[in-house]
Amino acid sequence: MVIRIGAAGLCRTDLHIQEGQWAEKSQVQLPYTPGHENAGWVHEVGSGVSNVEVGDTVIVHPFITCGLCRACRSGDDMHCENGSFPGINRDGGFADFLLTSARSVVKLDPSLQPADIAALADAGLTAIHAVKKAIPVLGAGTKAVVIGAGGLGHIGIQCLKAYTPTEIIVIDPSEPALELARELGADHTVKVDGSHVDTVKELTDDLGAQAIIDFVGEKGAVEDGVAMIKDGGFYYVIGYGQNIDIPTIDVIFREISFIGNLVGTYADLQDLMTLTAQGKVTLHTTTYPLDAINDAMNDLDNGRLQGRGILVPG
Amino acid sequence: MVIRIGAAGLCRTDLHIQEGQWAEKSQVQLPYTPGHENAGWVHEVGSGVSNVEVGDTVIVHPFITCGLCRACRSGDDMHCENGSFPGINRDGGFADFLLTSARSVVKLDPSLQPADIAALADAGLTAIHAVKKAIPVLGAGTKAVVIGAGGLGHIGIQCLKAYTPTEIIVIDPSEPALELARELGADHTVKVDGSHVDTVKELTDDLGAQAIIDFVGEKGAVEDGVAMIKDGGFYYVIGYGQNIDIPTIDVIFREISFIGNLVGTYADLQDLMTLTAQGKVTLHTTTYPLDAINDAMNDLDNGRLQGRGILVPG
Amino acid sequence: MVIRIGAAGLCRTDLHIQEGQWAEKSQVQLPYTPGHENAGWVHEVGSGVSNVEVGDTVIVHPFITCGLCRACRSGDDMHCENGSFPGINRDGGFADFLLTSARSVVKLDPSLQPADIAALADAGLTAIHAVKKAIPVLGAGTKAVVIGAGGLGHIGIQCLKAYTPTEIIVIDPSEPALELARELGADHTVKVDGSHVDTVKELTDDLGAQAIIDFVGEKGAVEDGVAMIKDGGFYYVIGYGQNIDIPTIDVIFREISFIGNLVGTYADLQDLMTLTAQGKVTLHTTTYPLDAINDAMNDLDNGRLQGRGILVPG
Amino acid sequence: MVIRIGAAGLCRTDLHIQEGQWAEKSQVQLPYTPGHENAGWVHEVGSGVSNVEVGDTVIVHPFITCGLCRACRSGDDMHCENGSFPGINRDGGFADFLLTSARSVVKLDPSLQPADIAALADAGLTAIHAVKKAIPVLGAGTKAVVIGAGGLGHIGIQCLKAYTPTEIIVIDPSEPALELARELGADHTVKVDGSHVDTVKELTDDLGAQAIIDFVGEKGAVEDGVAMIKDGGFYYVIGYGQNIDIPTIDVIFREISFIGNLVGTYADLQDLMTLTAQGKVTLHTTTYPLDAINDAMNDLDNGRLQGRGILVPG
Repeated sequence: MVIRIGAAGLCRTDLHIQEGQWAEKSQVQLPYTPGHENAGWVHEVGSGVSNVEVGDTVIVHPFITCGLCRACRSGDDMHCENGSFPGINRDGGFADFLLTSARSVVKLDPSLQPADIAALADAGLTAIHAVKKAIPVLGAGTKAVVIGAGGLGHIGIQCLKAYTPTEIIVIDPSEPALELARELGADHTVKVDGSHVDTVKELTDDLGAQAIIDFVGEKGAVEDGVAMIKDGGFYYVIGYGQNIDIPTIDVIFREISFIGNLVGTYADLQDLMTLTAQGKVTLHTTTYPLDAINDAMNDLDNGRLQGRGILVPG
Repeated sequence: MVIRIGAAGLCRTDLHIQEGQWAEKSQVQLPYTPGHENAGWVHEVGSGVSNVEVGDTVIVHPFITCGLCRACRSGDDMHCENGSFPGINRDGGFADFLLTSARSVVKLDPSLQPADIAALADAGLTAIHAVKKAIPVLGAGTKAVVIGAGGLGHIGIQCLKAYTPTEIIVIDPSEPALELARELGADHTVKVDGSHVDTVKELTDDLGAQAIIDFVGEKGAVEDGVAMIKDGGFYYVIGYGQNIDIPTIDVIFREISFIGNLVGTYADLQDLMTLTAQGKVTLHTTTYPLDAINDAMNDLDNGRLQGRGILVPG
Repeated sequence: MVIRIGAAGLCRTDLHIQEGQWAEKSQVQLPYTPGHENAGWVHEVGSGVSNVEVGDTVIVHPFITCGLCRACRSGDDMHCENGSFPGINRDGGFADFLLTSARSVVKLDPSLQPADIAALADAGLTAIHAVKKAIPVLGAGTKAVVIGAGGLGHIGIQCLKAYTPTEIIVIDPSEPALELARELGADHTVKVDGSHVDTVKELTDDLGAQAIIDFVGEKGAVEDGVAMIKDGGFYYVIGYGQNIDIPTIDVIFREISFIGNLVGTYADLQDLMTLTAQGKVTLHTTTYPLDAINDAMNDLDNGRLQGRGILVPG
Repeated sequence: MVIRIGAAGLCRTDLHIQEGQWAEKSQVQLPYTPGHENAGWVHEVGSGVSNVEVGDTVIVHPFITCGLCRACRSGDDMHCENGSFPGINRDGGFADFLLTSARSVVKLDPSLQPADIAALADAGLTAIHAVKKAIPVLGAGTKAVVIGAGGLGHIGIQCLKAYTPTEIIVIDPSEPALELARELGADHTVKVDGSHVDTVKELTDDLGAQAIIDFVGEKGAVEDGVAMIKDGGFYYVIGYGQNIDIPTIDVIFREISFIGNLVGTYADLQDLMTLTAQGKVTLHTTTYPLDAINDAMNDLDNGRLQGRGILVPG
């Protein structure tokens, strides 16, 4: 199936690809086109396609899956044994057209604009996937620390509010990001300024939080995060860059756990579109024309990008 | 409540205490008496005790808990806010008598001998606790790698067989330990000899196992374990010594998780006593008189101890 | 421990006791004092009590538990093997004083007034307990039908909103009750007027709802409820009076389940007090002096009681 | 995809179809061919089929699913919004050939004979599905009552043993069925003779069992089953015929739950084939030629059929 791209989100992973962090993992052949967060309109379909028609507005699940392996048959799309990942290991959506499959598209109301929702295809999807894993941990009276209120984090905060009664503490070095977090319902915001771990400890009666939801994973986030977990608590790893480096004695003595998160399932994407339609999740984005992609990447790298960056073909 | 010690198990943690790994965490005052794996007979009770009488044979849950805090009210004994840990941060059971509380004792059939079951109080309890966490992961067609078939591991293997239909792969450097693992029902045993990770990869179709149950946590176990997890899989941290040191990009790209485990609950101990009474768990031990404790510790440190070491007061 | 009663809630169960529905089950000796939903101040304590002091404001968990049996050790208070139930099988709180135990009291901020929160001790506790069971069923895009927006139902609605993103449909014969439901956040309200099942079917695309949360359980509620469940869905039984009477072929063909709910745990009560302190749950009550109890019971029986009825000793 | 039938299992549902219990639900057009438990060899495939080839030995999942709806995308095959059910609402496998889809077949080792495993396609699948739901309830020290050791029950017993450490009590009116149950590992067998409920109560310390797994659902099974549940326990409804008819006051006072079960998922069928390959599940069958189907149905109706009846085309 060919999608005419309406908008493609820019992700910290695109920076990490440029840095070479993904070269060995993706084994992608250069040159290729990144862009793994896509929405647009169906442009061309194969003969067997029954779920959408040419012209339909769609958001694109980032993974192309086979539908037949054990993972697919269990609803665990990201672990499809035969999957491929446009924008990571084959051509993606920083382009006019994208090749994907019928299994990867979610049909949307025609009134929706791709630029308004493209960022849900990966940033939002990853955030909701991690939050759904945390639901059993986050009952009444618990606290969750969200590290990073950027492209993923600002959606994560809204998912936490939709799914749980936990008290939300957001940490971020950027004052405007914290301002956005407060608007979206964070109970406490703490500026990352060196004293932030102590401030969070105070907010948690020196015990720490049941869940750390780390959308950053670099620049000291992991050490900070580990210091803020409550004994018996859980650390959700979403952002990446740095190592987790912790003595096993601390893992057992505090009985803490680290939970990996890789994007999300097709059902997660449907759920997120539902929350968006219900007004429980709203996206904050900054739009660039596709040919200004280098400006966008610079802004992202330097913390000047509010919400998620969106690229729109000319 | 005072227990007359019938037998006390010797644990790798007792070596780690001697090495100083616990000094900062436990804040124990020296000199003190270790021994956190105890069974014996009730020697003296306070006026309010209703669940046991003087002379009853009991196994002692290793943590003394308050019964009133949120953790206690939720059945999560090890996270009692007011707990203390005989043998770790106060005097333990390498002695003739042990001070504990009525909440910590499980009454046993008088025919049971403390030396035969003492090792269930911590080694067994820790093993069953970790295995119970792994049940949802270990359905039919899955594989679990058990690292270490010693004091904890040989009980873990039996718990895996009792609770799950998973295929069990055991790795250990000791041939007699692997022999014991086979007797207890391991489906595959692999000697730790440098090629063991490759062998396990072959046994798992190059995909790795859904669960790594690591009873060692040192001497390279963690690197090996990480290399053997299937994407989407879980690593249960039980043994300790070494660091977990892993790039967050691997945690997310493979969506793997690390689960901490701290001893077990009172209900876990009851469950283990039930499995033992049903013959589903049997202990393999080597007994020493209490005053030969230094020999026992040497044997443990040098891998000469089969099953669990048990100290019996003279 | 003796509590000076500040307020006691009136429950549909008190009507059912009068009708004789509980005589055989409770085996209570007549005469006795009902009242199982109590709050007040600690009046007298035994020597071993450490969690509260005379004068403390408390809400009383309705079950007196032993703390030592398997259920208690697992946090499953209501199935204590040695429990007793003031107001059901021994003297309760429609009185000046109540005898209970230290394990049953939750200490409150002294600024709280018993009359404002007493109804959380049973009505609220039962509602939150059922809602917590339903969390895994009620993801984004699901629908829940709440049957009855009275004493329990109006708290259930607020708990559903706090814990889940489900779309809430409330049915009730009383227009003021539906008005209250809308204020508390119900997404749809449907008057019970004979066409209500059809209306709910329309609201659920003719498929029914993933969860029916039935706070009524009589006067046709069960037939209505069964007709409104989605295939694969769950029926939470809370109110009672009528029979569930359903062919097993329907249970299997539709794969529907019926989940019993009995009051709630001590931890549930703590959770509810937290949600109340956070303003996520507010109680709607009508207060009567204790000696007007017969008027209160008449009002309840005739659907004239808004929210929960509260009796206050003179 | 066309399957050449190697064997088709006979099910109590085939009797219920003849009795007319399914007429309204299935809306099937008469005449039609029943047979919903099929195995054989791939006879013809469409152009897009990649998972099997002509000649492959396969077992057939009984439901034909679309692969695109929410249920399919979540691994919940039986609730496919576009599914059809050969043998129930369209032509099934009591025939030489069966029309199904590529999504419904599980490829088997060519050495397997369809007659040996066909009964896993529905009887076995339904049994494993129900047992997998019961895993969280059936820890060490629990008891499960299996009602009926026939075609489904004898597989259910083996699944319980593979997945849980529960103590298994089997009740059945037939002595040979109980004999089979004992061979397969039942811990206790009780003949249905009028005193069986009392006997089970004694075996459960007068408390009842945590789980009732009812493969019968008629002839008094439901009343018996309800009388044997422990407070807080679960009743798994699999067999059908009779009504569940129980006062809601009993459901709440005892906090018991009834769980519906409809066949099983594709992943459940894979799991069952794995357990069979590992020797953890073995089928007990009685084979008839396809044209002796009326004899087979008579034997089933009169309790003369040991294990599962299998029809083999001539």
